[in-house]
Amino acid sequence: MAKLITLKKMAESAKLASRTMAMANTEMKNHALELLRQNLQSSHQAILIANSEDIAEAKAQGLSPSMLDRLSLQGRLEGIIADIAQVIRLPDPIGEVCERPGLVGELDVIKCRTPLGVLGVIYESRPNVTIDVSALSLKSGNCAILRGGSETLRTNQVLVMAIQDSLRAAGLPPQAIQLVQTKDRAQVRKLLRLHAYIDLIIPRGGAALHRYCRENSTIPVITGGIGICHLFADETASVEPSIEVIVNAKTQRPTVCNALDTLLVHRGIAASFIPQVVDALRAKGVVFKLDNAAWEIMQKQHAANCQLAQPGDWNQEWLSLVLGVKVVADVGEAIAHIAAFSTAHSDGILTETAANAARFVKEVDSAAVYVNASTRFTDGSQLGLGAEVAISTQKLHARGPMGLKELTSYKWVIRGDYAIRP
Amino acid sequence: MAKLITLKKMAESAKLASRTMAMANTEMKNHALELLRQNLQSSHQAILIANSEDIAEAKAQGLSPSMLDRLSLQGRLEGIIADIAQVIRLPDPIGEVCERPGLVGELDVIKCRTPLGVLGVIYESRPNVTIDVSALSLKSGNCAILRGGSETLRTNQVLVMAIQDSLRAAGLPPQAIQLVQTKDRAQVRKLLRLHAYIDLIIPRGGAALHRYCRENSTIPVITGGIGICHLFADETASVEPSIEVIVNAKTQRPTVCNALDTLLVHRGIAASFIPQVVDALRAKGVVFKLDNAAWEIMQKQHAANCQLAQPGDWNQEWLSLVLGVKVVADVGEAIAHIAAFSTAHSDGILTETAANAARFVKEVDSAAVYVNASTRFTDGSQLGLGAEVAISTQKLHARGPMGLKELTSYKWVIRGDYAIRP
Repeated sequence: MAKLITLKKMAESAKLASRTMAMANTEMKNHALELLRQNLQSSHQAILIANSEDIAEAKAQGLSPSMLDRLSLQGRLEGIIADIAQVIRLPDPIGEVCERPGLVGELDVIKCRTPLGVLGVIYESRPNVTIDVSALSLKSGNCAILRGGSETLRTNQVLVMAIQDSLRAAGLPPQAIQLVQTKDRAQVRKLLRLHAYIDLIIPRGGAALHRYCRENSTIPVITGGIGICHLFADETASVEPSIEVIVNAKTQRPTVCNALDTLLVHRGIAASFIPQVVDALRAKGVVFKLDNAAWEIMQKQHAANCQLAQPGDWNQEWLSLVLGVKVVADVGEAIAHIAAFSTAHSDGILTETAANAARFVKEVDSAAVYVNASTRFTDGSQLGLGAEVAISTQKLHARGPMGLKELTSYKWVIRGDYAIRP
Repeated sequence: MAKLITLKKMAESAKLASRTMAMANTEMKNHALELLRQNLQSSHQAILIANSEDIAEAKAQGLSPSMLDRLSLQGRLEGIIADIAQVIRLPDPIGEVCERPGLVGELDVIKCRTPLGVLGVIYESRPNVTIDVSALSLKSGNCAILRGGSETLRTNQVLVMAIQDSLRAAGLPPQAIQLVQTKDRAQVRKLLRLHAYIDLIIPRGGAALHRYCRENSTIPVITGGIGICHLFADETASVEPSIEVIVNAKTQRPTVCNALDTLLVHRGIAASFIPQVVDALRAKGVVFKLDNAAWEIMQKQHAANCQLAQPGDWNQEWLSLVLGVKVVADVGEAIAHIAAFSTAHSDGILTETAANAARFVKEVDSAAVYVNASTRFTDGSQLGLGAEVAISTQKLHARGPMGLKELTSYKWVIRGDYAIRP
């Protein structure tokens, strides 16, 4: 394990390594990934030992069960190793001519895809992010400086050692992937100001981390990962399949950003639809926050698990088995509610009325807009990217799931015959 | 003229207007642009009077002749009005399906282009930016909050009044384009923190402005416009046409970011090439900063206008008739010098050796990389964008000249048949 070096020196060496990584051909990069796959397999034991030490300490410090679960690699390492094989199979985005304006005046103009350079990735808990981000960075010719949570330091150290060994053995600079080995939070602020070396900050964590990065970074930040997600059940929605979609969106994995937070129901079907939805979800343990109209409907049913919504509830990303339910007059009111409360992550309509679907798709300005589908699909692997480093809810650079291509920039390559500007 | 309102209220109203602008069809947007063209034509006199008042005050305050020149609309208004006609003719980027992943599992997936939302544009002097940025924002369905230099306040007020009148007459919200009407610099800092309403900051000005924005903004910033630009004359460069390119790059408009700053010359041709270049450029008034090898060559010629370069000179964006000249061993050393000193704006090679051109293009990581052409082509109108709002030298979102397309984001539109995630 390398001894502690200053953040600045780390970033300098990453920037230097980024020139080599940008030139590495697909074969070399895939070779490094294949070696990584093998290294992780052969150091399986060492990784799990380090991980169990991290978990033991976290338990002693009283971390919540859900945090402990996110921390654990037990039973997950095989999946992570399989994901690397998947990244090897993805096409290399670098060098590709991504646009071909062709002849412009007397110039021959193309745009070629290039790596972004050096990524700074700041995340909490989940050590699988260490491998996911490293594999995608490597494949896209980028370097990464990783700052994982202090609660996973031992696990991350073993993982990054395996990554650096693989890079070295493949003839690539081990400085391409580096770990900030400190529990000192002040280091994060320092990292955020190294714009001379780092091209992009990707925070992965809660709203507080995103806000901290936005307020303290002189490097461009991709914010995202916060989802107050809506589904609107229109008057013509097909009832049974709609309920299946809602149950999927709310309960398949309630702790993640693309899970459903608020259900909007057209008033024309509310009286029959809401009790059916409540029945189906209550069986899964969901608790409901109802607006007045929905409350009145459910009061007639003497329903358990139902509470009257408070105003702030429409601003909640629940991340748990809680669902807001509101009755709206029509698709226009649904769109207005979404415009006011959505975090522009994932919002959908359930309808058989083509005009309403078209209007919803046109007017709702979210990273992912759905018609008759679960919000849970907002995910790199589900949308064909193979993997993802983050889900962006900002509008600059990339929106929604970010895969390999979203880790690239481009350059203009312009050829002339000793052309001069008139 | 609207009375002064707080920046926050201004930004709120811009965000509200952005929903309407995003929905406006091409016909409405073009109609507003056509009205603007006519309004500017008919208020020609009023604009020039306001402009001459600004100039008189600036002169009294002792602004430099080059600043006064940038400030003046005298003789330029016709060109600006013609540019609007050009923007009307450009295709509308909004709504376009920009990617068609197609069927992914059971989902039908497309990506559609959307406006970014609200732009904050901070610039100095040149009032033509007011019209250029407004026309491109309008056409791309964006709103803009403009903070021009205090020295152009009168001119900008008249121009923005014409823009808002045109929006209103076309049935679009006048809040889509607003001017920060203050000379108070503290307002800029406030503007930079309104991330709840503004999606992107575009600074147009010197390095200090870019640095200020990067350090104080919680909104994503596009940095750029600073060009330390290089040309490398390789051993096989065709001499006479190369000199024409160099003269064009250095002298056609020396005060702009894509003008040449440093000439690198292969040592195999330096002894004959450098004196010829110096002769051609000296005729235009250029002063030279020579490295030791070039100095020695020119000393033999007893050349005027030649000075020995100081170390810091390679870090200079001259913005004037000064040129650094350095002898290098080969294309590799040229690339290394560029990696060390370029601002990644525009760099080129002059060569007849295809392998060197290919290596240069692959290894030089600048927004625009040239083979046998002048760096002066890095410009939206020269590269077929029709117009530009800025030239980005960062790697996120857009690189090089930014036209209409670079003022857009996208959303994922995903349709299913009540699809649920397995």
